[in-house]
Amino acid sequence: MRMSELSRLSGVPVATIKYYLREGLLPAGRQLSATQAEYDEQHLRRLRLIRALIGVRGLSVSTTRELLGALSEYTGDTHRLLGLALGAIRLTEDTEQDVPELADVEALVTELDWNVHKAAPARATLAETLASLRTLGVPLDRHTLLPYARLAERTAVLDLDQLQGIEDPLEAAERALLLTVLLEPALMALRRMAQENESARRHAEAGD
Amino acid sequence: MRMSELSRLSGVPVATIKYYLREGLLPAGRQLSATQAEYDEQHLRRLRLIRALIGVRGLSVSTTRELLGALSEYTGDTHRLLGLALGAIRLTEDTEQDVPELADVEALVTELDWNVHKAAPARATLAETLASLRTLGVPLDRHTLLPYARLAERTAVLDLDQLQGIEDPLEAAERALLLTVLLEPALMALRRMAQENESARRHAEAGD
Repeated sequence: MRMSELSRLSGVPVATIKYYLREGLLPAGRQLSATQAEYDEQHLRRLRLIRALIGVRGLSVSTTRELLGALSEYTGDTHRLLGLALGAIRLTEDTEQDVPELADVEALVTELDWNVHKAAPARATLAETLASLRTLGVPLDRHTLLPYARLAERTAVLDLDQLQGIEDPLEAAERALLLTVLLEPALMALRRMAQENESARRHAEAGD
Repeated sequence: MRMSELSRLSGVPVATIKYYLREGLLPAGRQLSATQAEYDEQHLRRLRLIRALIGVRGLSVSTTRELLGALSEYTGDTHRLLGLALGAIRLTEDTEQDVPELADVEALVTELDWNVHKAAPARATLAETLASLRTLGVPLDRHTLLPYARLAERTAVLDLDQLQGIEDPLEAAERALLLTVLLEPALMALRRMAQENESARRHAEAGD
C-alpha cells in the first residue's frame, strides 16, 4: 500500500508517519521510485503499536525507539524480550539519584526472594517514589510494602499466563510489550475503582 | 519565613514559587509590606505536595489545582475527599471517547458488585485502554480482567487500611491523595520486578 493508504488505515496523519520514518521508529517502505514507496501489513501493525506507546502510555520517542529495537532483536526468546522491555522503560522521567531507599528496595527483594536484575530500572523507580513519600511525611517501610509486593507477584502470574501458548515469536514478543506497558493504566483504573468501592463500604459500615 | 527561606527549605526556585502563586496552586503569604510577604509551615508542606504531584506523577498544573482544591474543601470527610480525588484525576490525557468497551466496564462492575460512580473517570480510562488493546489485536475480555480486579480489590483494602487511625483530618486527606496518586509508580515498579522474577522462574523450569 502507499503512504496515503497506510495513513487512512491507521488514522495517523501522513506528516506524523514521515516523522516516525525519520526518527527510525518505522522501517522504510520498499522504494518503488525516487518519490514513492510501498508499505505492508507489518508497517500498519508497527504503526498501531507506536501510536499505543506514545499516545496511550505517553512514552517519549526515544523510549519507544528503544522498546521497538528490543522487540525486533529478540523475537525468538519471549522471556529475554520481556526482561529487555522491563529494562528499557523508565516509569518516571527523573534523573537517577542515589537515594538511600535503594537499600530498602534491595532488602525487600531479598526478603521476597525475587530474581530481579541489579540494574533493573524498576528498582530505582520504586526507591525514588519511596524517597518522595518520605519527603512528604509518609514513609512506607518494608513491612507495609510486603503485602503490596505479594499482590504484584500474583498479578505477574496472570500477566505471564497470557503469553502461554502463543506460537508465533513476534506475536508473543509484541504481546509481552503490550501487557507490560499498556495494561498499566487499566490496572491503575481498577485500583481507583476498587478504592472508591472500599471507601464506600467502610463509610456505610461506619453508619453514615 | 520569607520567600527565599521557603525556596531554600523546599528546594523549589523562587521563580517557580511565584509561578505557583500566580496559578493559584499555593495560597498567598501574609502581606508584610507592598513587596514582602510571610510564609509558614503550611506553605512549605503544600509546596512539597505540589512538587510531588507535578514532578513525580507528572500531573498538569490544572489537574494539580483541581486536586488541591478538593483537598482544601473537604478536609472533614476523608471518604468524601478520596472520592473527589479519584474523580478529579484523569490517568490519560486523551479526549473522552464513547468507546464500546464502556459497556464491558459496566458489566464488569456489576459482576464485581462494586459501588463505583457512573461518572468516575477510571471507568473511561479502563474502557479506553481496553479499546487500544483491541485495536492492537489483544482484546481482553471480562473473564481475563476479573482476576486482575480481584487483586485490585485487595490492594484497595491495603490502601484504605493506611488511612485508619489518623485523627487529624487534613493529614488523613493529604495521605489519601498521596496514596492514591503517588503510590502508583511504586506499584507499577513492583509489578515489573515481579514479572521479571516470574519470567525467570518459568524460564528456569523450562530447563534453559
